[in-house]
Amino acid sequence: MARHIFFISDGTGITAETVGMSLLTQFDLYDFEYSTLPYIDTPEKAEMVLGQIAGAFHKDGEQPIVFSTLMNPEVSKVIAKCPGVIIDAFAHFIPRLEEALGLKASGQAGKSHSVKSPDQYHARIDAVNFTINTDDGLHPDYYKIAEIILVGVSRSGKTPTSIYMALNFGIKCANYPITQDDLDHDEIPKVLKDYTGKCFGLTIDPVRLNQIRTQRMADTNYATLKQCEKEVRATEAIFREYKIPMLNTTQLSVEEIATRIVSEKGLQRSPR
Amino acid sequence: MARHIFFISDGTGITAETVGMSLLTQFDLYDFEYSTLPYIDTPEKAEMVLGQIAGAFHKDGEQPIVFSTLMNPEVSKVIAKCPGVIIDAFAHFIPRLEEALGLKASGQAGKSHSVKSPDQYHARIDAVNFTINTDDGLHPDYYKIAEIILVGVSRSGKTPTSIYMALNFGIKCANYPITQDDLDHDEIPKVLKDYTGKCFGLTIDPVRLNQIRTQRMADTNYATLKQCEKEVRATEAIFREYKIPMLNTTQLSVEEIATRIVSEKGLQRSPR
Repeated sequence: MARHIFFISDGTGITAETVGMSLLTQFDLYDFEYSTLPYIDTPEKAEMVLGQIAGAFHKDGEQPIVFSTLMNPEVSKVIAKCPGVIIDAFAHFIPRLEEALGLKASGQAGKSHSVKSPDQYHARIDAVNFTINTDDGLHPDYYKIAEIILVGVSRSGKTPTSIYMALNFGIKCANYPITQDDLDHDEIPKVLKDYTGKCFGLTIDPVRLNQIRTQRMADTNYATLKQCEKEVRATEAIFREYKIPMLNTTQLSVEEIATRIVSEKGLQRSPR
Repeated sequence: MARHIFFISDGTGITAETVGMSLLTQFDLYDFEYSTLPYIDTPEKAEMVLGQIAGAFHKDGEQPIVFSTLMNPEVSKVIAKCPGVIIDAFAHFIPRLEEALGLKASGQAGKSHSVKSPDQYHARIDAVNFTINTDDGLHPDYYKIAEIILVGVSRSGKTPTSIYMALNFGIKCANYPITQDDLDHDEIPKVLKDYTGKCFGLTIDPVRLNQIRTQRMADTNYATLKQCEKEVRATEAIFREYKIPMLNTTQLSVEEIATRIVSEKGLQRSPR
C-alpha cells in the first residue's frame, strides 16, 4: 500500500516538491503516492485540503506526510490541525535566517517562483529562445553568441540537456549533431572549427544508444549496434583530437549532465 | 555589500539552491552573492569548500550563509567547522521522516536528481522531444497524442511554458501560434478544430506585447501597439467562442503559468 504524500504551497508548489522529493529519495524502497496542491492561499482552501488529508489517512490507515511551504500564518494554522506528519522547511528555517540577517521576513506568500527580477527573468527566456533556435545544428551563425555548444551523435542527450541549461541556468546553449556525413570527413565539422573552445562533447555507451535508436527507428542502419559503435568511436576520436572535453551520459539525468558541464566549463549558473 | 550565500551538495546542488532561494526571497531587499558547489562528496573537497567560506567571511566581515544537502556524515563534519550559518534541511528533517516511516534513510548521497526510475525518466525525455517537435505549430498531425496544446499570439509565452511543462512535469505539450492569417478567417485554425478540448489559451497585455515585439523587431507592423491590440482582442474572442480556457501571462513566470494550467486542466504533474 502506498503512503500518501502531500505537497502544499501558497505558490506553485515547486519548492515543496523539490524539498520533499529529495528527502524521500532517502527511502526509495517505500511506495509513495503524490498530490501537489498549489495556491493554497486562504483559510477556506486550507479547510478543503484538510479534508483531503483526512480522507487519505482514513483510506490508508497511516499518517500522510505533508511537505508545506506556506507563509500565511492563518493558512498554516488550519493545516496544523491535519492528521498528517507536517514537514515545514519555512517555519523551521525562517527564524534562523531572520537572526542571521538581522531582518524580519517579508511574509509574502508565493514569491519563490514568481518573476523576482525582470532582467534576470528575460535573460532566461532569451536563453530558451536561443536554444530552440540553435537546436540540432540550426543557425550555426549564432555560435558567436553561444555560451556553450553541445556536440554529439544523434540521441546522446544533447537537446534535453541544452534546454535544461537554458531554462534552469539561463545559459545560451546550442547543440550540433555529429552525423555519418561529418564522420566521413574524419575531422571536426566546418561550422564548429572556430568554436572548439565553446564545444562540449556528449558521448554514450553504444549498446545503450542502439537500444534508444531501435525504439525509434527499428530495422534501419542508423539503429544497428555496428553503426552506433562506429559513430561513437569516431566522434570520441574527434573530441580527443580537438581537445574538446567529453562526458558519458549513459547513466546520468539531464540535471546531472548540465551540472557537470557547467562546473567543468566554469560557466555562471544563476540559481532561481 | 552583498552577503555571501553558499549552496553545497554531494549531488547537483539543485535542491540546496531551491530551498535556499525560496527562503531568501523572504528577504528580497537584501543583496546576495551566490556560489553553488556541487559534488562535494569527499572530506578533501569539503576542506577546499571550508577555505572558500572562510575567505568570504574574511572579505565581507559577515557570516556567509550555507545551505547544505549533504548526506555523507564525514563531509558534513568538515563543513560543520566553517564560520558560516549552516542551514541543513536534510539533517533536520531526515530523523522526523525516519520516525514517521519506521525506516532508516539509505544515506546514499547525490540521489535527488539522478535517474531514479528509468521509465519515468524516459517518459520525461519523450515529452521534451514531443514538445520540440511540435513547437510553434510544427506537426499538427501529432495533436492526437498531445496532452495539451497552448494557443496564443506570437510572444505570449507559449514556447518557454511548453518546454517547462515537458521538462519539469513530463507533460506532452504542443503549441500553436495564432497569426494575422488565422485571424483574417475569424475562426479557430482548422488544425485545432478537432482538439479544442486540449487547447489552452495564453493571452497578454497588448502594451507589454508591444514592448517585447519592439525589442525583437522594431519598426515593423508586427510590433506596433495597434497590431498587438488587434491580435490580442481577436484571439481572446476566439478563445471565448470555442470555450477555450485562457490565462493572462503578463505578470507570471513560466513556473506559475505551467502550474496554473496543470491545475486548471486537471493534468497529472509528476514531481521529481
